[in-house]
Amino acid sequence: MIAFMSDWGYESYYVGVAKAVIKSIKPDVEIIDITHNVKEYNIRQAAHILQRVCKDFPSQSIFLVVVDPSVGTSRKPICMKTKNDMFFVGPDNGVFSFVGNNFGVKEVRILENQDYFYGSSPTFHGRDIFAPVAAYLASGVKIRELGSLLMNYEILRYRKPQKIGDTIRGEIAYYDHFGNLETNIPGKYVEEFLDHDAFLKIGQNQYETTFCRTYFDVRPGQLLIHTDSSGFVEIAINEGNAQKMLGAKAGELLEIEKVVTNKDT
Amino acid sequence: MIAFMSDWGYESYYVGVAKAVIKSIKPDVEIIDITHNVKEYNIRQAAHILQRVCKDFPSQSIFLVVVDPSVGTSRKPICMKTKNDMFFVGPDNGVFSFVGNNFGVKEVRILENQDYFYGSSPTFHGRDIFAPVAAYLASGVKIRELGSLLMNYEILRYRKPQKIGDTIRGEIAYYDHFGNLETNIPGKYVEEFLDHDAFLKIGQNQYETTFCRTYFDVRPGQLLIHTDSSGFVEIAINEGNAQKMLGAKAGELLEIEKVVTNKDT
Amino acid sequence: MIAFMSDWGYESYYVGVAKAVIKSIKPDVEIIDITHNVKEYNIRQAAHILQRVCKDFPSQSIFLVVVDPSVGTSRKPICMKTKNDMFFVGPDNGVFSFVGNNFGVKEVRILENQDYFYGSSPTFHGRDIFAPVAAYLASGVKIRELGSLLMNYEILRYRKPQKIGDTIRGEIAYYDHFGNLETNIPGKYVEEFLDHDAFLKIGQNQYETTFCRTYFDVRPGQLLIHTDSSGFVEIAINEGNAQKMLGAKAGELLEIEKVVTNKDT
Repeated sequence: MIAFMSDWGYESYYVGVAKAVIKSIKPDVEIIDITHNVKEYNIRQAAHILQRVCKDFPSQSIFLVVVDPSVGTSRKPICMKTKNDMFFVGPDNGVFSFVGNNFGVKEVRILENQDYFYGSSPTFHGRDIFAPVAAYLASGVKIRELGSLLMNYEILRYRKPQKIGDTIRGEIAYYDHFGNLETNIPGKYVEEFLDHDAFLKIGQNQYETTFCRTYFDVRPGQLLIHTDSSGFVEIAINEGNAQKMLGAKAGELLEIEKVVTNKDT
Repeated sequence: MIAFMSDWGYESYYVGVAKAVIKSIKPDVEIIDITHNVKEYNIRQAAHILQRVCKDFPSQSIFLVVVDPSVGTSRKPICMKTKNDMFFVGPDNGVFSFVGNNFGVKEVRILENQDYFYGSSPTFHGRDIFAPVAAYLASGVKIRELGSLLMNYEILRYRKPQKIGDTIRGEIAYYDHFGNLETNIPGKYVEEFLDHDAFLKIGQNQYETTFCRTYFDVRPGQLLIHTDSSGFVEIAINEGNAQKMLGAKAGELLEIEKVVTNKDT
Repeated sequence: MIAFMSDWGYESYYVGVAKAVIKSIKPDVEIIDITHNVKEYNIRQAAHILQRVCKDFPSQSIFLVVVDPSVGTSRKPICMKTKNDMFFVGPDNGVFSFVGNNFGVKEVRILENQDYFYGSSPTFHGRDIFAPVAAYLASGVKIRELGSLLMNYEILRYRKPQKIGDTIRGEIAYYDHFGNLETNIPGKYVEEFLDHDAFLKIGQNQYETTFCRTYFDVRPGQLLIHTDSSGFVEIAINEGNAQKMLGAKAGELLEIEKVVTNKDT
C-alpha cells in the first residue's frame, strides 16, 4: 500500500501524473491519498501529519511524501525504513524526522540507482524519482538496491514536549478544517488532569480552559483541552473554531498549566 | 462498493486514515468518494446530496457518511438498510432521513458490536466505528450482527414539496460549483409547464423566469427553471451563477408560480 | 486506464456519480484523477493540461475530459483516437485540439450509439454519455462502434509558438499552485540560451530575467526562465509566486528576447 502526501494542491495535474507512473510500474498497487493540501513548502506540517497517520496504516506501508522546496539543489532523495517496518520515500529535508524519532530508524538509503527512476527532470523528482521508487518498493525491490547508506539524515528543530509538575510545554503541530489545534504533546501527559481547569498560554496570550474527554463536556463556544484521536493533546472549541479565535499558528509554542482548586485540597 | 462522503475537507488526513482502516479489513473493496467538502456540520446538505447520488450507485452499495457535529454525545451510530437494498452507515442525526423517506426503510441497527470497531476514540467515530463497519459489511457481515434494532431514527424537518394548481413550493437543497440551485421539488411537478413563464419567489424577492429544457433555451445571463440530471427542479442562469445573483442559501423556501399568458387561453 | 479531468470541483458529487457509472460497467478499470479543478468552462486551460499529462500515461489510456460549457446545445459528443494510440472522450469544443495537433489524429467518432449511454439528461453528458463510453472503451468496445466518423473537429485558436533569431513568442498556458507560469513554447527553443539573460514581455510590461536549469540558479525572489518537467518553457520565481508578481493570466501572449552581452562577442 502506498500512502501519498504532497503540497501540490488539487488543481494541479502533478498528483495524477505521479499516479500514472506508479500504476505503469505496479498496476495493482493500492494508492491512498493522505492529503495534497499540505501548505506549500511546509515541511513541519507534513512531518507532524505523517507522524499522526502512520499508526493507522498496515505494516510494510510505503509513504510517498513530496513537500520539497529545495528540489534541484543538492538535497538528497532518500528512503527511510523504520523499526516498525514502514518505508518513507521523499526528500531529505527533515520531513521524516518525527517518524524517525518516534518509531526508530533501521536504515536510510540515498536514491541513486537510476534503474528505479522514471525521468530526469531537475524540478519534478516527485514524478521522476520518488513515485517510481515507491512503486518499485511495492513490487518487491529491496531497499538496499536503491543506493548507498546515509548515516545522518536531516532533523527538524522543534520544541520537544515536556511536563514539569503541573506545567506542560510543547508546540502547535497543525490545525484541521474545523480549527482544532493539534499539538505535539502526548495525551498521557494530561490524563491525570481530566476535569481540572487550566491556563493555556500561546505567545503573549493566556486563556482559561478545562481538561475534557470530548467536545461536549463544555458549553458551545467554550475552549477545551483533550486527547485527540491520534493520541496527542488537542485544543478545541465546542461547535467553534479554536484556530480563528486564538489566532494561533503551526509551530507556535504553547504552555498548559493545571489550575489548583479547592477540589485538589 | 463503498461510497464515502464527509465534511472533513481535502486538507485533512482523516479521509486517508479512514481508507487505510477500510483497506486493512477488506483490501479489494472499491471506495468511491462522493465529496469530502460538505459544508462543516451541514447535515441537511449531506442528506440532500445523498438522496441525489444514491440512484446512480449499484444495488448493495454501502454509503459511509460522516457529517457528525455531535460525535461524543449520546447520538447513536447506526446502519440503515433501505428497501432498494442500499446500506447507510453513519450517525443518527437526520442525515439519512431523505433516503429513508424516499426508498423506504427495511431496518435500522445501532452499531454496538465492538468486534466490528477499529478503535475507541470518543471524537473520531469516522475512523473507529463507521469506516470499519462499512468495510465489514462489504466483507459479507450481516446487518443483524452489528447491533440491536432501532425503531425510531432521527428525521430532519424540511419543507415538503407541494403543488397546488399552478403554484409549487419547496426548499433549496444545495448549490453546486457553478451556482446552480438544486431544490427538493420533483421534476414531474413542472413537466406540464415547459416553455411557460414563471414567477420565482425566494424570501422577499421575486424574479421573472421561464420553464426550460436546458440552459441554452434562454439568453446568456437569463434565469431559468428546469429539471436537473437528478430528476429535481433546478434554478440556473445560462452562463451565469444563480446562487450569487439571487443570494440564495441552502434550506431557504421557494415558491414558483406559472404565469398565465395569452398562450393559455 | 481511464484518466479523468473536469471543471466540476471537489465540493460537487458529480465526479463520484460518474465513477459509479464507470465502475458499474467495468468494475476493475483503473481511474486516475488528473484534476477536477479546471477553472469553470475554461476549455483552453483543460486543453493545455491535457497535452502535458498525456505523455506520462501508458499507451491505450482513455482520457475522459468534461469541460463542457455548451452541454445541451448542438455541440457533438466525440471520441478522438490519436496516432500514439490514446483515446479522448468528451465534447467537441476544442478541448482536444492541442493533443490532436501534437500527436496526430487517427480518427474522430461522434458518440451516437445509445447502447453505450447510461441516461439521457440534456445537461449531464458527463454522467450519461462520456463516462459510460469511456468505460465501454476500457471493456474492449471498438471506437468504430461508437458512431459515425467526424471529419472536422473543433480547433481552438491560439498563438502558435515561434522563434525568430533571438526572439521567442508564445502564450501562457496555465499556472500551477505555486504560481509557476507554464507556456506553450517547446523547451528546445531555449536550449541554446542557457545561462544568458533575457527580456520577458507580457502585455505592456517588460522584465529582466535569466535562462536557467533550475529554480536555484537564481537568488530567492528572482525571476527565471527554464524548461519545466513537461518539456515546455516555464516562467518562475525562486521561492516566490510568478503569477502573482507578474499578474499574468492564462491565454496572454508573451515574448522572450535573449539579451546580447559581452559574453557572446
